[in-house]
Amino acid sequence: MIGPYSFKEYMQVVESFHGSTAPGLLAGGFMVDLAMKRMPEGALLNAICETQACLPDAIQLLTPCTVGNSRLKIINLGRFALSLYEKDNGEGFRVFFDSGRLESWPGIATWLFKLKPKAEQNQERLLAEIREAGQRLCGVQPIRVDPKHLHKKNKGRISSCIQCGEPYPLQDGPICLACQGETPYVSIPGRQPGRSTHLVLVKPQHPGKTSRGLVSNCSMCGEPYPESDGPVCRACQGESVKVIRD
Amino acid sequence: MIGPYSFKEYMQVVESFHGSTAPGLLAGGFMVDLAMKRMPEGALLNAICETQACLPDAIQLLTPCTVGNSRLKIINLGRFALSLYEKDNGEGFRVFFDSGRLESWPGIATWLFKLKPKAEQNQERLLAEIREAGQRLCGVQPIRVDPKHLHKKNKGRISSCIQCGEPYPLQDGPICLACQGETPYVSIPGRQPGRSTHLVLVKPQHPGKTSRGLVSNCSMCGEPYPESDGPVCRACQGESVKVIRD
Repeated sequence: MIGPYSFKEYMQVVESFHGSTAPGLLAGGFMVDLAMKRMPEGALLNAICETQACLPDAIQLLTPCTVGNSRLKIINLGRFALSLYEKDNGEGFRVFFDSGRLESWPGIATWLFKLKPKAEQNQERLLAEIREAGQRLCGVQPIRVDPKHLHKKNKGRISSCIQCGEPYPLQDGPICLACQGETPYVSIPGRQPGRSTHLVLVKPQHPGKTSRGLVSNCSMCGEPYPESDGPVCRACQGESVKVIRD
Repeated sequence: MIGPYSFKEYMQVVESFHGSTAPGLLAGGFMVDLAMKRMPEGALLNAICETQACLPDAIQLLTPCTVGNSRLKIINLGRFALSLYEKDNGEGFRVFFDSGRLESWPGIATWLFKLKPKAEQNQERLLAEIREAGQRLCGVQPIRVDPKHLHKKNKGRISSCIQCGEPYPLQDGPICLACQGETPYVSIPGRQPGRSTHLVLVKPQHPGKTSRGLVSNCSMCGEPYPESDGPVCRACQGESVKVIRD
């Protein structure tokens, strides 16, 4: 059993969610199961995952903790390890890959330490080894999570960004982080929406929405502004905003 | 329909995975579905989510992209928005909450802008409004993801950390990030493992494993070392390591 699943069921769930029966999800299944069994019944669990690779999905499939419900935190320390802990006091257990026990499992050692390129590794043998080794590969240690990681940060007040018009947490600044230049997109002004049997929902009456693109600092006033507005921002083009005070 | 699910099925899947039928998952379901329908059939999809709250779970449930398979990247810009794009060229669509359309949905506006404390909001009415509004609340824009976000970083060589003994990416430094002080745990030297019908797997023959705890810089040599070793590191206590060269 891995969590509530038989081995076969778990592999099916993994394939459906993760897209493949990755070795990290199988090893991760044993690890999460081991941590879960140590936690008190009925405890409100949170999780920390020390890697971004594979293991977060095993946690999301086998515990109530997901990225979207904020109960799984990924702190990328590069170690294939996870902790489950009680939300209120931070007490719980950390499960890690004990590399001192790898001697009997050469396939697992080759995979974990990347001793051969992936294509040269025998995937079937690797999965068989992980299944055979199961929880014997894992170390467990009691932990207490640093209180600074226990509490969810409050986003505070939400407002519409005066630049893009979208709701954002006011504590991020006078405009949202994307409009401050942290957007991961580059502008594609000429591109048309692709295939669709759906209504195109970019509203023509909201031209601001379609002008989103590269944001620069205006060379006159220094404020961030959408480049599509011209060589300087609209305010410096003469459209300055009147501030009305009571 | 939301993705491959009927409304009722989707809510069941959400409750099982996320733990509750949160409004963000329902709104997110409509948003993800809208983005999915715009992408070419058979395209290898990746996703960017601009918030950590709720929306990542809708993406993980309705697309092949998860945190653990590295196809979902969360770039927290504080906006309730997501993009799906083709892995190779970064082209795709961004779907966002169009706050200009909220006038007809006061419950949604109250929730989104946190105009009332959560306990005073009518959850049932909110879900009904989101269901009624559906994709009419969403804006869509074509995007191209900045090439710097398209490629997965290679972790490079993996080695055992000389301090904790666990495998870690060598590019993180001479010891792993946790041993460099980024661990989210505080030490609990006296605590015993909790309830268990399972074998306790902390190996006594690996004392290094159980001594993991606070790491400080040694006041004599300045190197990081586990505080449990004493007031100075073992090397400075006289146990210095002989380096043997060929």
